[in-house]
Amino acid sequence: MTRHRIVRAVPRAQSSTIAALAAAGVATVHEAIGRVGLLDAGIRPIQDLASIAGSAVTVSCQPGDNLMIHAAVEQVGNGDVLVVATTSPSTDGMIGELLATSLQARGCSGLVIDAGVRDKAALTQMGFPAWTRAVHAQGTSKTRAGSVNTPIACGGQLVDAGDVVVADDDGVCIVPWAGAEVALAAAAARLDKEAKTRRALAAGELGLDLYGLRTTLSDLGVEYVDIR
Amino acid sequence: MTRHRIVRAVPRAQSSTIAALAAAGVATVHEAIGRVGLLDAGIRPIQDLASIAGSAVTVSCQPGDNLMIHAAVEQVGNGDVLVVATTSPSTDGMIGELLATSLQARGCSGLVIDAGVRDKAALTQMGFPAWTRAVHAQGTSKTRAGSVNTPIACGGQLVDAGDVVVADDDGVCIVPWAGAEVALAAAAARLDKEAKTRRALAAGELGLDLYGLRTTLSDLGVEYVDIR
Amino acid sequence: MTRHRIVRAVPRAQSSTIAALAAAGVATVHEAIGRVGLLDAGIRPIQDLASIAGSAVTVSCQPGDNLMIHAAVEQVGNGDVLVVATTSPSTDGMIGELLATSLQARGCSGLVIDAGVRDKAALTQMGFPAWTRAVHAQGTSKTRAGSVNTPIACGGQLVDAGDVVVADDDGVCIVPWAGAEVALAAAAARLDKEAKTRRALAAGELGLDLYGLRTTLSDLGVEYVDIR
Amino acid sequence: MTRHRIVRAVPRAQSSTIAALAAAGVATVHEAIGRVGLLDAGIRPIQDLASIAGSAVTVSCQPGDNLMIHAAVEQVGNGDVLVVATTSPSTDGMIGELLATSLQARGCSGLVIDAGVRDKAALTQMGFPAWTRAVHAQGTSKTRAGSVNTPIACGGQLVDAGDVVVADDDGVCIVPWAGAEVALAAAAARLDKEAKTRRALAAGELGLDLYGLRTTLSDLGVEYVDIR
Amino acid sequence: MTRHRIVRAVPRAQSSTIAALAAAGVATVHEAIGRVGLLDAGIRPIQDLASIAGSAVTVSCQPGDNLMIHAAVEQVGNGDVLVVATTSPSTDGMIGELLATSLQARGCSGLVIDAGVRDKAALTQMGFPAWTRAVHAQGTSKTRAGSVNTPIACGGQLVDAGDVVVADDDGVCIVPWAGAEVALAAAAARLDKEAKTRRALAAGELGLDLYGLRTTLSDLGVEYVDIR
Amino acid sequence: MTRHRIVRAVPRAQSSTIAALAAAGVATVHEAIGRVGLLDAGIRPIQDLASIAGSAVTVSCQPGDNLMIHAAVEQVGNGDVLVVATTSPSTDGMIGELLATSLQARGCSGLVIDAGVRDKAALTQMGFPAWTRAVHAQGTSKTRAGSVNTPIACGGQLVDAGDVVVADDDGVCIVPWAGAEVALAAAAARLDKEAKTRRALAAGELGLDLYGLRTTLSDLGVEYVDIR
Repeated sequence: MTRHRIVRAVPRAQSSTIAALAAAGVATVHEAIGRVGLLDAGIRPIQDLASIAGSAVTVSCQPGDNLMIHAAVEQVGNGDVLVVATTSPSTDGMIGELLATSLQARGCSGLVIDAGVRDKAALTQMGFPAWTRAVHAQGTSKTRAGSVNTPIACGGQLVDAGDVVVADDDGVCIVPWAGAEVALAAAAARLDKEAKTRRALAAGELGLDLYGLRTTLSDLGVEYVDIR
Repeated sequence: MTRHRIVRAVPRAQSSTIAALAAAGVATVHEAIGRVGLLDAGIRPIQDLASIAGSAVTVSCQPGDNLMIHAAVEQVGNGDVLVVATTSPSTDGMIGELLATSLQARGCSGLVIDAGVRDKAALTQMGFPAWTRAVHAQGTSKTRAGSVNTPIACGGQLVDAGDVVVADDDGVCIVPWAGAEVALAAAAARLDKEAKTRRALAAGELGLDLYGLRTTLSDLGVEYVDIR
Repeated sequence: MTRHRIVRAVPRAQSSTIAALAAAGVATVHEAIGRVGLLDAGIRPIQDLASIAGSAVTVSCQPGDNLMIHAAVEQVGNGDVLVVATTSPSTDGMIGELLATSLQARGCSGLVIDAGVRDKAALTQMGFPAWTRAVHAQGTSKTRAGSVNTPIACGGQLVDAGDVVVADDDGVCIVPWAGAEVALAAAAARLDKEAKTRRALAAGELGLDLYGLRTTLSDLGVEYVDIR
Repeated sequence: MTRHRIVRAVPRAQSSTIAALAAAGVATVHEAIGRVGLLDAGIRPIQDLASIAGSAVTVSCQPGDNLMIHAAVEQVGNGDVLVVATTSPSTDGMIGELLATSLQARGCSGLVIDAGVRDKAALTQMGFPAWTRAVHAQGTSKTRAGSVNTPIACGGQLVDAGDVVVADDDGVCIVPWAGAEVALAAAAARLDKEAKTRRALAAGELGLDLYGLRTTLSDLGVEYVDIR
Repeated sequence: MTRHRIVRAVPRAQSSTIAALAAAGVATVHEAIGRVGLLDAGIRPIQDLASIAGSAVTVSCQPGDNLMIHAAVEQVGNGDVLVVATTSPSTDGMIGELLATSLQARGCSGLVIDAGVRDKAALTQMGFPAWTRAVHAQGTSKTRAGSVNTPIACGGQLVDAGDVVVADDDGVCIVPWAGAEVALAAAAARLDKEAKTRRALAAGELGLDLYGLRTTLSDLGVEYVDIR
Repeated sequence: MTRHRIVRAVPRAQSSTIAALAAAGVATVHEAIGRVGLLDAGIRPIQDLASIAGSAVTVSCQPGDNLMIHAAVEQVGNGDVLVVATTSPSTDGMIGELLATSLQARGCSGLVIDAGVRDKAALTQMGFPAWTRAVHAQGTSKTRAGSVNTPIACGGQLVDAGDVVVADDDGVCIVPWAGAEVALAAAAARLDKEAKTRRALAAGELGLDLYGLRTTLSDLGVEYVDIR
């Protein structure tokens, strides 16, 4: 009964905005947009130190089947990030070296998947970054319907085609397409502030003083005692 | 930066359709709509044998805070189901006897929450059915912004205000608002077919014959052997 | 490449032995056979107070597919227990009311499945006991090859066709077919001993004295102190 | 090297205080003492509707060994609750019908264990309530040293001998021995307040008004919109 | 009652076949043999980029005890892989630097364990590859009976002595001893095909065309739409 | 009701003892003190090959709030290890680059946290070692009371201010402050013994002979068989 669709239109934020969000990183962007959009902690990078951002091409697959990922490859534009979810939980290795080769040939900058990947060594060697719930060789079929570029739930968050996906060692954060510019401005302001804070803390100043937390402690009735 | 909103408008499917979907049950409805919309297996009923359906009033809360649930109570109409998600994973007991009392006073028919509940004994005694990831006494604050009746990700699925929530001992299934009538027709057809199948199987007929699966086994090269 | 087979021959222990093992219960049988054969704690009954035993009819399925369960129904004899595993982890609801009806019509006494079931309410009402890793409405296909009555790994243990499956509120224990008589003798001896121990403990005697553990404590250097 | 000790002295709060804390229940007590002392959500009752409180007799066991539980039985006074932890995580069924019989003969009012129990059916039938991480038949030895009535970490919380253990359907909360009277006063005040709130909410008043949350929403910038 | 045995006879596939299976890798071998034999995704390598294969020497231990691993060392031949399971779930560090030194002195090529290891840094430095469910310092005793070279359940799969264990970054796959040659032929054919596919995909050809999936999509009723 | 306190006094073991315990490593220290004090296997290092020890500065925070970590920074002395727990389970990224900068400026040698961290890349680059349950960007508030340098439960173990924390690739072990010297002596003896054992095993001697286990096997009735 459900209508399965492949949507060809993907709204994309400006590439300079996307690049700047990647540079800001997940923790800063997540704070800047009000602590929303962060995928759950079970979705982890397979590599260290990769930090990317890109427009989401979303894929909804049946568990155990990657047909729609093949359909999605055709919809990927240069710099896009593929974001995959399944209609029920799965840790199958839905994407491996072959699909990564195909995605990379299309300019895809990386993968976020609420399921599993395989060929981890090859993916790392070819420089195709991936965030995933599992690394597992378990194979999948190519026979079941799903959708591309429709809204999906991935890692506990809503993702729609064109949303900006920011991913690094701390996880994955989703910025709604329409809010990318505002998010960047807020992130930039936060980075400025953090740089000053970092210098003060490195010089030995305490967060207690810098953030005025001594009053908070006192108001909450926290007592200092010298004897155990 | 994120705009937090409370949407007052909830589209609702016809109450007779909703009641019929409740009678069909989760497994049948899930099959009827193409095996989509099923929340993950970690969200379980706190009671046995409850079977409900209703229009979703959706709530997005910050972890550890139930302010927006209080805001949502005002938006609940008779027969509606409250559907709650948090912006990052939590098992806190966000709803207990007091909120359930308030929801029941509004005609709310039950709760689906991708977090936790408390006062389990009271909820069961007052006949307020709930599906939840955890039962835990852990309390929450009432100080952080979120949204009501905006699309959320709950139990790995998208839920929007007005979607029909069907819940029983087998879990929770979400039927998009616009597809409720078609879903019901498909579910009814399936129930008819299942009734016939049940009679045949109860009479000793085998699924192998009823579904024509002997050919499938043979085509797949499955061999029968008499010696181990 | 793998040869998929349906083995028609199931060795069965004597029905009186099987019945006596059911009466002894899982904890006693597990102890009697040397603390082996116990499925992991994640496989739980869907009902309270059921206590069964039977000869295993084993099924190996692909994840998301219950074709081989249909094939297995034909191999089930009166009093047998169906034991199902998948070739990779799954919590799909592979068995529901229809298959349970068919199994019950064949005299099947219950189900142990390292995956999921659905139609929990119906299964309970029809008195078909089941031990499972999950209750979930998620449906499955009937298109993939597997085997029946070959050795499988289920819940972390080996199970072969004809092994005696003992299941109650404490979990599931597998007794190798050839060892059923010896297991029963050991279980019976243990039950006698436990009855005496229970009387002594109920009368206020301490395990410290009954089992001679005061010496053990002393040998291990455990000290009694009266002041904290 | 570690000194293993059995401490014979258990400070106990007044029995009337303990009884009143049991009547207040876990959620109320947990709130009353400042949202501390709550064991994690993985420790669940094996029965419905039991609600107990008692002075903790604490036990620290090696994983897979229940020797120290036998030693602890002798230290249990009338109405006490046995609280068991292992030095590394375990789900073994460390306590079953025999030990429960012995504990009940000593007047023990129940069990909290950060491991597993077995003989669930018997425990329930004899009215011995238990809160546990697992139900599993897995047996244990009686050969390894540990301690009784020393401070332990159980379910993520500190528990010391004599602390008041409150347990019901919502979990388990630990009240430090010395704070039991103050906790009771705070819980009683809270119960009074909750009774009034319950009546108001049942009459249709909204939490938004009762708690003055409309201002909170407004201050946080949450907007009401009528069109989706 | 259970007979514990150490079997001295291990059937071994040809070393050239084993080496070729290692070169093919887990994902390819798993596909080649019909998507069976793959240990679950929770058993992960402690190192990157190791890729091994060898004949299984199987060990069944009681939880918390590694006596039988010491017995197994004597049965290890050059190039063999030790495969360890426990009779109930455990994450103890059953093998560390000392046992790894002993195993390496016997020519053992690596370890697969459905439990834990310790001395991770030392194991990595000495080039002893291991696949494990946990890294944990938790120590074990050497006092409990088990078996060597009998069939075990490990990571959800059956493993018998002499089965070929293939392990790399994507997990661990078990090839039955008798099927090693056929598995290799199928894997080799698959590798040839994959090389061609990789070239085509790298050149920008789409899987949709290469695998003829456009018809599949159309048959399933998946629609292309240009407007969201 | 709960009194929240910041204790300024931290007893510290001798720095030479602490350094020697770091050199001995977690597995050896854990064995030396009788297999106690080991945090659970879910708390893992974010870096490879770091091996530290230091006096514990303990912190108890409410979930989702790191106010007390700011308070704790002031109490950290040169070489100390910050040990953080929350009053209910959380995986929020409570500590990131800014707090690590502040801690490092105080001479803090590392972090053990039963929750999460963020800015993993920065922490690794600045050489600030951390052991944590999660890496997650999820932010926290600075508004809720807790305590510093009071006893806490962390990773299933008790930790008090001044206890010696030993942490490396195998996890984290806590040595009570008063027992540090005895622990070191036992660890040193164990290291000597292990060095001899390692040489013997590397030379091909078997653990069966070295530890006299052939008798154990025989006593347990384990049989050697030559035919499968």
